[in-house]
Amino acid sequence: MSLTTVHFSMSLDGFMAGPDQSIDEPLGVGGERLHEWHAWDGREMHPADEAMKAELLTKRGAVLMGRNMFGPIRGPWEGAAEGDWRGWWGDEPPYHTDVFVLTHFARDAVRMEGGTTFHFVTGGFAEGLRVAREAGDGDVHVAGGAATIRQALEAGEVDQVTLDIVPVTLGSGERVFPEGQVDLGWEPVEVFASPYATHVRYRVQR
Amino acid sequence: MSLTTVHFSMSLDGFMAGPDQSIDEPLGVGGERLHEWHAWDGREMHPADEAMKAELLTKRGAVLMGRNMFGPIRGPWEGAAEGDWRGWWGDEPPYHTDVFVLTHFARDAVRMEGGTTFHFVTGGFAEGLRVAREAGDGDVHVAGGAATIRQALEAGEVDQVTLDIVPVTLGSGERVFPEGQVDLGWEPVEVFASPYATHVRYRVQR
Repeated sequence: MSLTTVHFSMSLDGFMAGPDQSIDEPLGVGGERLHEWHAWDGREMHPADEAMKAELLTKRGAVLMGRNMFGPIRGPWEGAAEGDWRGWWGDEPPYHTDVFVLTHFARDAVRMEGGTTFHFVTGGFAEGLRVAREAGDGDVHVAGGAATIRQALEAGEVDQVTLDIVPVTLGSGERVFPEGQVDLGWEPVEVFASPYATHVRYRVQR
Repeated sequence: MSLTTVHFSMSLDGFMAGPDQSIDEPLGVGGERLHEWHAWDGREMHPADEAMKAELLTKRGAVLMGRNMFGPIRGPWEGAAEGDWRGWWGDEPPYHTDVFVLTHFARDAVRMEGGTTFHFVTGGFAEGLRVAREAGDGDVHVAGGAATIRQALEAGEVDQVTLDIVPVTLGSGERVFPEGQVDLGWEPVEVFASPYATHVRYRVQR
């Protein structure tokens, strides 16, 4: 059975990015605090965090993401101030597979080093998910951002959620959950705990 | 060293009670979903949930709570429509110790069966915490509701937080966290996981 997965880091007050996202602060103000469990400061990683990072870097059948996650450009790609934007991740992005980017503006595919190709899908979320499933073995990782993960949840298309619950508050920013009281159908099935984050895996009853 | 503790159940979107709390729905609309891990429907409890319930029922040096948690009465105690309100918990409340209720309206202490006595403190949170610490061995459990827990956090008086993270969303209701980006100083130290809740214990760096 193929799996559609999401995995995101969240503050205790329910934000997956801080306010005022920009090219300088793609995670929003304070948003980098949600990712300190990655030990970007060079300290030794906790084994639980290491396992979660390894899982994030596992190659998927395909990846689906929103344009907001791919880059800061709004409007048409041609003539954008950011030039020939090729994502945040340098010449060799960590995906090593087909990545489908949801956008309102068509663009030719961009082939990167290491097996990552960015495809641009203008048909909306459902169309993006369909082509992503067909591109690989059927497994699709919905990488983000908040709006795209919310669409995946609202469409009832997610089988598994991994949540890194980080002991900080952001006060405002990007929320992932649909509005109101929603029966998510999430059952916690596994926990990986470190002093930096509590990683909870949920199976989604569909 | 004496400990000041809090323990509350929270939805994934950060609410510890639903909206529209009332005498009929003291946990707010949908709020009872945060407490399904207590297995009130009579099913066998999961061992992790059982351990957390036993901990909640452990006798403390003293308990501190807001008036909103004690009951639905607002304004003076005398002449209230609810009559001689003695809490939500029947003749024998589960505290078995001195319980200090923060209120703007003085009232004589109410002695219940099983060792619980409700004391009414009109001097505000700091005064309530001081008398609660002096009443017993110095350990104080700040039981709730949201406003009282928030005051305890903002005052920097909490040593340990236990959070039951419940896989539901409430969309609106009572929040516990201070506004904005606050350095909580919470370090996850222990996790008890069940299919109903992820119970995380945090040590608070003060």
